Amino acid sequence: MQENYCYFNGTLLPFTEAKLALNDLGLWRGYGIFDYLRTYHGRPFKLAKHYARLERSAAAVGLELPLGLSAIEEITEELLYERAENATDVGFRWVLTGGYTDNGTNPSGPPNFFITTESLVKIATSDYTEGVKVITYEHLRELPEIKTTNYLSIYLNQSAMQAQNAKDVLYVKNGLISECTRTNFFLVKGNTLITPDTHILRGITRQIVLDIAPEVFAQVELRPLSLAELSEADEAFKVGTTNEVMPVVQIDDIRIGQGKPGTLTQKLMQVFQNLVHHS
Amino acid sequence: MQENYCYFNGTLLPFTEAKLALNDLGLWRGYGIFDYLRTYHGRPFKLAKHYARLERSAAAVGLELPLGLSAIEEITEELLYERAENATDVGFRWVLTGGYTDNGTNPSGPPNFFITTESLVKIATSDYTEGVKVITYEHLRELPEIKTTNYLSIYLNQSAMQAQNAKDVLYVKNGLISECTRTNFFLVKGNTLITPDTHILRGITRQIVLDIAPEVFAQVELRPLSLAELSEADEAFKVGTTNEVMPVVQIDDIRIGQGKPGTLTQKLMQVFQNLVHHS
Repeated sequence: MQENYCYFNGTLLPFTEAKLALNDLGLWRGYGIFDYLRTYHGRPFKLAKHYARLERSAAAVGLELPLGLSAIEEITEELLYERAENATDVGFRWVLTGGYTDNGTNPSGPPNFFITTESLVKIATSDYTEGVKVITYEHLRELPEIKTTNYLSIYLNQSAMQAQNAKDVLYVKNGLISECTRTNFFLVKGNTLITPDTHILRGITRQIVLDIAPEVFAQVELRPLSLAELSEADEAFKVGTTNEVMPVVQIDDIRIGQGKPGTLTQKLMQVFQNLVHHS
Repeated sequence: MQENYCYFNGTLLPFTEAKLALNDLGLWRGYGIFDYLRTYHGRPFKLAKHYARLERSAAAVGLELPLGLSAIEEITEELLYERAENATDVGFRWVLTGGYTDNGTNPSGPPNFFITTESLVKIATSDYTEGVKVITYEHLRELPEIKTTNYLSIYLNQSAMQAQNAKDVLYVKNGLISECTRTNFFLVKGNTLITPDTHILRGITRQIVLDIAPEVFAQVELRPLSLAELSEADEAFKVGTTNEVMPVVQIDDIRIGQGKPGTLTQKLMQVFQNLVHHS
């Protein structure tokens, strides 16, 4: 990030030179939404879909995006051109806040909008080959369909995750599973794929997985998923822009299937990799 | 604010010169807590109590305050000395975030901590003499006892408030009242004062009101407050550092009492003003 360029309220500049005044409403009041996408082979992946979601998030909190899709595409090209020399693939974070405030609550001007170019998060290969553990947390995101900047639950669960060697938190409310902190959650029973369809963020990766699911699964069920069903599951995984398709082999004390990435999950991971690298 | 000094990560400087890099976790992930206090007659009011709450909020989200109480007191003196010449009284906002991040989620260094010196929000005298309207919103703050920076619900209700000429939102969940967006809520029935005692932020002003309540009310009840009780209420008000004691005369379509500030509320307002100006 340090070496990369960013876009900030109309200007392209080195990340280290972009500075926000302290009275931003995203910072002071959580009045902010965002989206995040990555490149494959140096090309932005599903940019238009991320933009469409950003637009929906903005509208939902009463903010207007200062840039249209084609302007974002042009800026993305420039940021890619300016990216650190050693980086083929990067992530782009688009952040839109309520702007600055003079009285602590009301915007005193236009929204603040910036795009950062970021190194991709490195995930250990063993996470993919052995699968990861997640822990449950009684929680439902306040506005699950809007990609707000509120991820405090990650930090509230940090010590529990470390203590239990878990890589993520799975939100459960009144016995129903919704999603993980930054990924959508799927279960496999036999050759049926199951994932919740309400009270979740509509993940771009989730949609890709649903699109390619027929190549791997005999049946797909979009429906409420209860915590009780974990014990009967054969496989589980979670998906997102950074995680891609990540096998989940343990949830709290419940071992999923054989406690290692399932056959169908592995097949899905292959189909997914094939798609992102050859489309 | 523009003319005032602020404190930012160890340095006192003009507000206009204090700048945050874009990768702050308060901004990106809502990983931030804060507190806000004001002065009366140029002296910080209940600073130690605000500090104690800030410390509790920080601990609850796994952050450590970089400054002890006496350091904050000293800095406050310096900020007061540097405040804009025309300001007798000001507000101080203390903001603590998870610090900067290199990977979008985990802190890469110490927390960011800053203090801004702010003009007091001007509230129309008529709000106090005529009382205000609030509208209800089905919501319960995620971590009501922690003063996090998540106030998105204000912005989600902005148009509804404007359309209905309401000044605030009253949170109701499953028929139970908790609090307003930045104030604690009280009802009066006969000469009994009633306010919720759980799922709320423990307001410093709320505690003051509870301390002086015996001078005005025959009885005080700290207990769950149902929406249904609004129709039987004689008076209502909400309290906070900025609002002080603010009469509430209408909630949605329900007129409270005679639709004007009640006698006991007015008496409480006097006792409160007496306390803050002569203690």
